[in-house]
Amino acid sequence: MTKTAAIIGGGVIGGGWAARFLLNGWNINIFDPDPDAKRKIDAVLTNARYALPMLYDVALPAEGKLTFCDTISDAVTTADWVQESVPERLPLKRKVFQTIQEHCPPGAIIGSSTSGFKPSQLQGCASRPEQIMVTHPFNPVYLLPLIELVPTAKNPPELVAQASEILTSLGMHPLHVRAEIDAHIADRFLEAVWREALWLIKDDIATTEEIDNAIRYGFGLRWAQMGLFETYRIAGGEAGMRHFIEQFGPCLDWPWTKLMDVPDLTDELIDKIASQSDAQSGMHTIRELERQRDENLVGILRALKARDAGAGALLKNHETTLAPAPATGCTTRPLITQNRTVPIDWTDYNGHMNESRYGQVFSDAADNIMVRIGADQAYINAGSSFFTVEIDIKFLMECHAGQSFRVHSRITEAAGKKVRIFHEMLSTDGEVLASGDQLLLHVSLQTRRTSPMPADMVAKASALMGDN
Amino acid sequence: MTKTAAIIGGGVIGGGWAARFLLNGWNINIFDPDPDAKRKIDAVLTNARYALPMLYDVALPAEGKLTFCDTISDAVTTADWVQESVPERLPLKRKVFQTIQEHCPPGAIIGSSTSGFKPSQLQGCASRPEQIMVTHPFNPVYLLPLIELVPTAKNPPELVAQASEILTSLGMHPLHVRAEIDAHIADRFLEAVWREALWLIKDDIATTEEIDNAIRYGFGLRWAQMGLFETYRIAGGEAGMRHFIEQFGPCLDWPWTKLMDVPDLTDELIDKIASQSDAQSGMHTIRELERQRDENLVGILRALKARDAGAGALLKNHETTLAPAPATGCTTRPLITQNRTVPIDWTDYNGHMNESRYGQVFSDAADNIMVRIGADQAYINAGSSFFTVEIDIKFLMECHAGQSFRVHSRITEAAGKKVRIFHEMLSTDGEVLASGDQLLLHVSLQTRRTSPMPADMVAKASALMGDN
Repeated sequence: MTKTAAIIGGGVIGGGWAARFLLNGWNINIFDPDPDAKRKIDAVLTNARYALPMLYDVALPAEGKLTFCDTISDAVTTADWVQESVPERLPLKRKVFQTIQEHCPPGAIIGSSTSGFKPSQLQGCASRPEQIMVTHPFNPVYLLPLIELVPTAKNPPELVAQASEILTSLGMHPLHVRAEIDAHIADRFLEAVWREALWLIKDDIATTEEIDNAIRYGFGLRWAQMGLFETYRIAGGEAGMRHFIEQFGPCLDWPWTKLMDVPDLTDELIDKIASQSDAQSGMHTIRELERQRDENLVGILRALKARDAGAGALLKNHETTLAPAPATGCTTRPLITQNRTVPIDWTDYNGHMNESRYGQVFSDAADNIMVRIGADQAYINAGSSFFTVEIDIKFLMECHAGQSFRVHSRITEAAGKKVRIFHEMLSTDGEVLASGDQLLLHVSLQTRRTSPMPADMVAKASALMGDN
Repeated sequence: MTKTAAIIGGGVIGGGWAARFLLNGWNINIFDPDPDAKRKIDAVLTNARYALPMLYDVALPAEGKLTFCDTISDAVTTADWVQESVPERLPLKRKVFQTIQEHCPPGAIIGSSTSGFKPSQLQGCASRPEQIMVTHPFNPVYLLPLIELVPTAKNPPELVAQASEILTSLGMHPLHVRAEIDAHIADRFLEAVWREALWLIKDDIATTEEIDNAIRYGFGLRWAQMGLFETYRIAGGEAGMRHFIEQFGPCLDWPWTKLMDVPDLTDELIDKIASQSDAQSGMHTIRELERQRDENLVGILRALKARDAGAGALLKNHETTLAPAPATGCTTRPLITQNRTVPIDWTDYNGHMNESRYGQVFSDAADNIMVRIGADQAYINAGSSFFTVEIDIKFLMECHAGQSFRVHSRITEAAGKKVRIFHEMLSTDGEVLASGDQLLLHVSLQTRRTSPMPADMVAKASALMGDN
């Protein structure tokens, strides 16, 4: 049976929760007294409906039913989960919990999005404190998986387990915080970084943009895939975490920060860190961790390059300095239209190049040919282009991540609206790895219909028809 | 003419520098008194030669020449750039600079990898302080672009500009740190986070693994693409940075951290942050920034899913709960072999699905068929599989990011070692977007040669041959 979540308090966080539940097939009841709430939640839902399904290689369940309610009681009466995301004022939250508990089923889970309050503070004098726990999300809630799940001794373990199971079923990661503490875990780090950033700006050391770049071009990339300790374990090399702390530890005595209250690095603390790190990562050698880290970073950097964002934009700029733009006409025989390496994101989990990427290779080779016959970006901007209408690919040899290859291409037909290109993909030893026979049609981008090539383009294309 | 870099001090950092220069076409002279230096640097170079070229869609320049030198003087005599990465002891570094300067060209740049010392400390009593500046990299140096470039007033601006240009030509981002400060910029954040982490472990709040997960499933993903301030600008909504600080600012007074020395949030400081943030991001609306953030996050998360790493591993697990495994035999007519959305990483910069991804769609559809005829993972593990040897794709309509589609597939030939599948990719309205005619051969994975299908597989495949 379809389950129901009540979202108490909309806005960016409540809207994000609504999207997570809704797009995973739950019915949603929303209560927010803000007259503008519907518009705000719709904006979040629009973002979520675009982004969340793209994460998956299968369809998400059919969306549940979305209902805006006039009262908390309407919203929570049939709820299996109640998520509170009202402003961070304890008396307000306690009042909201009281109203929720007057109307919701006693078996429902009541999660709070609070980033600062401890669950015991929220439970306070509630009639059924055992229902209330912290489930703290991170913005955008519809994409980031982390949820800090913080219960107290008053929450029955079965209910905590059930909360954990439901969050997992929404694609989230419940990080069970075993000891309650102000700001839980993640926000303590965010707070530390925020304070350091305020000092750097106040003291005119760096601007907001310089600080952002210091993060996203460096350790931000590392932390997207491994956290602090696994990263440092690698930095310690074969000698591991203990060695890293011994190297890095003395810096704690340096005046590197105004945040100076530092625990003593006793043998006991070092042992604790080293043994926790062993339990976390000890099943992998440092070489294995390095390889994992590097492959993750390559995948992330290439994803950012495709978006022209962050460090990916740097890569894209650098790449333009590495390869001269293809010249009009053909200067070499055979004509080399690709010269590169198979990247990790083109490979299956077994390390072989995915068969669909042969099409990528030939599509990129065709782009190179297009520039040579005058169908470059300026030509496209002026309103005409070529569309591939058919490609016949023969797969001859397997390729693997890191393998260098080149492509030889020649035009086999160029008349009217048609250009046909024959591509061969070759290893550095000259073995043919695959071939592609590609038919492109010249189109008007206004009418989206085919149209004849201009005469000079036919002439340039014909010049590329000779034997290779 | 090929330029030469001298790497003084090998290890992980020096080795990473060597790789950056070498793989960008520079000659490298390495000096490290450690008898094990060559082995250590070879290990870093092996990693770099695998990972760095994969970032690019073109070939890198031919590698320069790598020379191990017995003395600093041999290494630096002809150097255009000297990179010092010796242990973090100031007297040692000063002694090394003295020897370097006795032998290197006076116009060469001498960069120090120091994470802690200020450039004025390094310049100290050097004979030519104007040559020495901090160029602080981040591990792995061959993949992460950030370099903190910290000069002093003694460095001529032309030399700083030249250093910046050279670093950019290596694919790095020189972050010019305008005011020298202990630990520069990034390590101040790393230090703050490290201290907070030590407290959390000492106080038994979290383990190393829980801390790593709190980072890599949450804010680590955000920081890989936008930093602290652009992320918070979005959180502030249309009201922007000032609103965010006013919301978040009061938390500074809460006991969230033991790192308590906090600057006063004066109007002056708030104005400074808000105006710097406007200069950084004010050309984009919050909606545009949200879209950029979400597309970046989708790209990163999908890259991690392909590596089965970090938050991508969570996604992969969640996905298995969303789609039942295909059943043997055909239960529906037409047989639906794909049902999903076009993700952002399948699209060109104009938002249209890249032509090569049609091949991906049909390859995934074929995987679904394979399971239905019994060629599942267990069958592959037992030593046989199918290889696609040819596919003929007809491209009929354009597709865009976020578009839902399904694929109908039917087997058109199943005999001996051959299976032929005809796929149609359809929009939700039932329009045919593309078709694929795919020929697969049954192979033995031991001999890598074709072999006949077993009789029961032919029977299962034949059952899928009816009209759709």
